[in-house]
Amino acid sequence: MKVTLIGYSPEPEKVPGMAAMLTHSKTTPEALYGLPDQQTRKVLEQVMELGHTSVIEHTCFTFAISGVSRSLTHQLVRHRIASYSQQSQRYVNLSDPQYVVPPTITEHAEMAAEYEKTMALIWKQYNSLLKLGIPAEDARYVLPNATCTNILVTMNARELLHFFELRCCLHAQWEIRKLADLMLAEVKQVAPTIFQHAGPACESSGVCPEHKTDCPRYPG
Amino acid sequence: MKVTLIGYSPEPEKVPGMAAMLTHSKTTPEALYGLPDQQTRKVLEQVMELGHTSVIEHTCFTFAISGVSRSLTHQLVRHRIASYSQQSQRYVNLSDPQYVVPPTITEHAEMAAEYEKTMALIWKQYNSLLKLGIPAEDARYVLPNATCTNILVTMNARELLHFFELRCCLHAQWEIRKLADLMLAEVKQVAPTIFQHAGPACESSGVCPEHKTDCPRYPG
Amino acid sequence: MKVTLIGYSPEPEKVPGMAAMLTHSKTTPEALYGLPDQQTRKVLEQVMELGHTSVIEHTCFTFAISGVSRSLTHQLVRHRIASYSQQSQRYVNLSDPQYVVPPTITEHAEMAAEYEKTMALIWKQYNSLLKLGIPAEDARYVLPNATCTNILVTMNARELLHFFELRCCLHAQWEIRKLADLMLAEVKQVAPTIFQHAGPACESSGVCPEHKTDCPRYPG
Amino acid sequence: MKVTLIGYSPEPEKVPGMAAMLTHSKTTPEALYGLPDQQTRKVLEQVMELGHTSVIEHTCFTFAISGVSRSLTHQLVRHRIASYSQQSQRYVNLSDPQYVVPPTITEHAEMAAEYEKTMALIWKQYNSLLKLGIPAEDARYVLPNATCTNILVTMNARELLHFFELRCCLHAQWEIRKLADLMLAEVKQVAPTIFQHAGPACESSGVCPEHKTDCPRYPG
Repeated sequence: MKVTLIGYSPEPEKVPGMAAMLTHSKTTPEALYGLPDQQTRKVLEQVMELGHTSVIEHTCFTFAISGVSRSLTHQLVRHRIASYSQQSQRYVNLSDPQYVVPPTITEHAEMAAEYEKTMALIWKQYNSLLKLGIPAEDARYVLPNATCTNILVTMNARELLHFFELRCCLHAQWEIRKLADLMLAEVKQVAPTIFQHAGPACESSGVCPEHKTDCPRYPG
Repeated sequence: MKVTLIGYSPEPEKVPGMAAMLTHSKTTPEALYGLPDQQTRKVLEQVMELGHTSVIEHTCFTFAISGVSRSLTHQLVRHRIASYSQQSQRYVNLSDPQYVVPPTITEHAEMAAEYEKTMALIWKQYNSLLKLGIPAEDARYVLPNATCTNILVTMNARELLHFFELRCCLHAQWEIRKLADLMLAEVKQVAPTIFQHAGPACESSGVCPEHKTDCPRYPG
Repeated sequence: MKVTLIGYSPEPEKVPGMAAMLTHSKTTPEALYGLPDQQTRKVLEQVMELGHTSVIEHTCFTFAISGVSRSLTHQLVRHRIASYSQQSQRYVNLSDPQYVVPPTITEHAEMAAEYEKTMALIWKQYNSLLKLGIPAEDARYVLPNATCTNILVTMNARELLHFFELRCCLHAQWEIRKLADLMLAEVKQVAPTIFQHAGPACESSGVCPEHKTDCPRYPG
Repeated sequence: MKVTLIGYSPEPEKVPGMAAMLTHSKTTPEALYGLPDQQTRKVLEQVMELGHTSVIEHTCFTFAISGVSRSLTHQLVRHRIASYSQQSQRYVNLSDPQYVVPPTITEHAEMAAEYEKTMALIWKQYNSLLKLGIPAEDARYVLPNATCTNILVTMNARELLHFFELRCCLHAQWEIRKLADLMLAEVKQVAPTIFQHAGPACESSGVCPEHKTDCPRYPG
């Protein structure tokens, strides 16, 4: 899995800060934009504290993600307030076996060997189908959930906070949690005020929405 | 593949018709709602003709879809203005092999036999992993795109028109086109005015947005 | 202000209940739909308790709203996950003065009289502009925020819960709070399980997201 | 009316170009991002030509807009795939009369004088209400649609294309058309490939979706 933050809105924290000021002010947007960073940051901190997160929608982030499974992307694209461009299995010939191995399988040498063999066989079958003239879009029906894919994702900061609440949770599926953790590490560096308390709901809001008493994080 | 229209907004054409009237009228909504069907239908026809389709958003349809592949649903859920509830491969043990076979494969007896063998082997592996204590959410990494899934979908009529434009097109992938055709047949019965000209873009708007000169429907 | 629930998804609680079951089951959607109401209701209660509200998106409600101000609708249409059809001030000639009076003004006889006089004058001006041939879309620039309007709104149950959290709050503006309270009363009658705990965030989640220590509801 | 493009995604055309390549390629996103601009631009041109505009969602634009009427913003915020932060009439005391005058009124000296008088009277009333202790959120009920407001808007390029189709049309209301024209001029400078054919539907697609035979642009 590789995650690269390839771009984000310039002034990722100043614009939300000035946006918050604009809603309560007679001052022109241009004048607010000219205020010192520390002033807009302070306002941003205040509105984040109050949960008024609409202003952070003005800040968008684009991530290039590669080496993740189609299981992961099928979950990822369920987040509807976002934009995606994904490697197509209709148009791309995936003749080289590239797949994800879950850690629970890697840990057991014997199972892992079986898994590798199955993957080899699946790709052998995939390539045979292609050779016989079956279009890639149909041959791919044999390809596993584990198959690697690439995807470009753009999300705004508000949706990202929500994404982290759900997907950084210990009850999230391991692969998408790993992705969410990597994405969070990236955005924290460029927008530390916005993502200061970002993470699973228990961390961001102090409450487990699922009341999970069996969670190691909140064993209570 | 099975598609059942399990529910839709009551008065699927009257409400959009009265909605269109409401935008241009002083009359109360309740009085407009009381107008004869033929009057609201006529207005609906007029606004549909003008492409003013916002009023048909008030009409929503819920479909139960089963026996489709995960390839299909990965495409389907990319339609973001809709609501989905899908069978989870994390929580459901899919020990019985249930999968889709593309027609290009079914047509060739030899390939079809190979495909069946591969599926049998994949499921054997999946069940072995489960037996060894691997959680279903990890064992499913070996499961193919072909694996059957169930999904409940709610879309409003405006988004459905867009869905049909893209997915009833001869260039859409065969399985999702089949689904779109079945969905269209269902909604045409209960909302004939709205879906009168529904279908691929070439049919609904008379133009191929992709300028496909190689399309059998519009041979250039 | 008048609010009429003119339509909603049939089986507003059964479909979400079966949707929740479908995600964790091998059973066909049709079979789940055939289960007794009490069984699907129980599952719905469980998932609502866990905050898994995605399934209630399948249930949509359409409200006819009349006699509200344009101040209210300018706020209302900021809720983006919804569908609206509103009386147009471009195309409708609003020659009869119809406007909302805030209670703080009604309470003071003198002010109220002034307010009435201002409204009369504004409408006199509006009608003069129309008479001189100014199009309604320009004459309306003199019309006040108080001007009455009609609007048809369709929202799904999940968005409604969010709407009630924000707009039933004592810190919401009085007119939209009144609307939200009326809408909530309507939907509670037809979907009591879904809206059981609906209301301001302090009620639905037990926490005030704004930490308002000056709120009469939670005097801190 | 003042429109300032205060920010937009870095590499506004390169990212969509590489996004389009990613969907059809085995190459890593990072390698595609490293390609020369002319190569990604060529791909972007091709996909725009085919109407495959999903890739331009990765590019977002933020506009600061001031000196527009509340009539305009009530229309503007109906575009739901966008983010807004608007000056609040609940929290901002708008004691100085600032309002828009429609050109049809400016053109007639006599009417214009009447309009000014009405505005003066309205604001006098507004200020009286404030002085008597009526909260701004209620006093504003007398304020006209013409009242100036400030708003910050973030939209992605795909939604902007749609916005321009509707709002640059000669049948759009004059004020929002003026805004759309100014926004289009701004984005054309920084993303010329994306907005090359942007404008009303007749220009972008060569067809009038409303079949307006009375339009000066397409006199039938």
